[in-house]
Amino acid sequence: MFVIMIYDVGERRVAKMLKTGRKYLNWVQNSVLEGELSEGLLAKLKAEVKQKIDHESDSVIFYTWRSERYTARDVIGIEKNELALIV
Amino acid sequence: MFVIMIYDVGERRVAKMLKTGRKYLNWVQNSVLEGELSEGLLAKLKAEVKQKIDHESDSVIFYTWRSERYTARDVIGIEKNELALIV
Repeated sequence: MFVIMIYDVGERRVAKMLKTGRKYLNWVQNSVLEGELSEGLLAKLKAEVKQKIDHESDSVIFYTWRSERYTARDVIGIEKNELALIV
Repeated sequence: MFVIMIYDVGERRVAKMLKTGRKYLNWVQNSVLEGELSEGLLAKLKAEVKQKIDHESDSVIFYTWRSERYTARDVIGIEKNELALIV
């Protein structure tokens, strides 16, 4: 399945959330990751996220598509993940 | 087209970006909006975003799909837009 994960978590959990997401997906921009995952791995990722967030204040969205990726992804402004590739 | 817009902009431009996005899309979570738009309206939205961001530091992603919406959208943690509906 094609998955987009967008997290909005407290500052103290940002690094942890990025690290968790990156185990399964590719980083796109600050709080956005995307990639192809099997249903099993998606369930695993969600379970890890569930364990790591503060359920009173944090929020993580998973968009999933069974078939196609997307028609276009356009970035207006800077491409933050270019920096990540250099570091 | 089905559109997901995710913005990552400096604090001083957050409110402006949300206001711009909301003219065309529905708010999902802090920096995420989604909705159905014609190609013409999407171009208009992008043009507005281009004018309003700081091109040295801000970043706005537009995912677009010609056909289907998505198979699922799951939120782990709080559903921030429920609050928005109450306010």
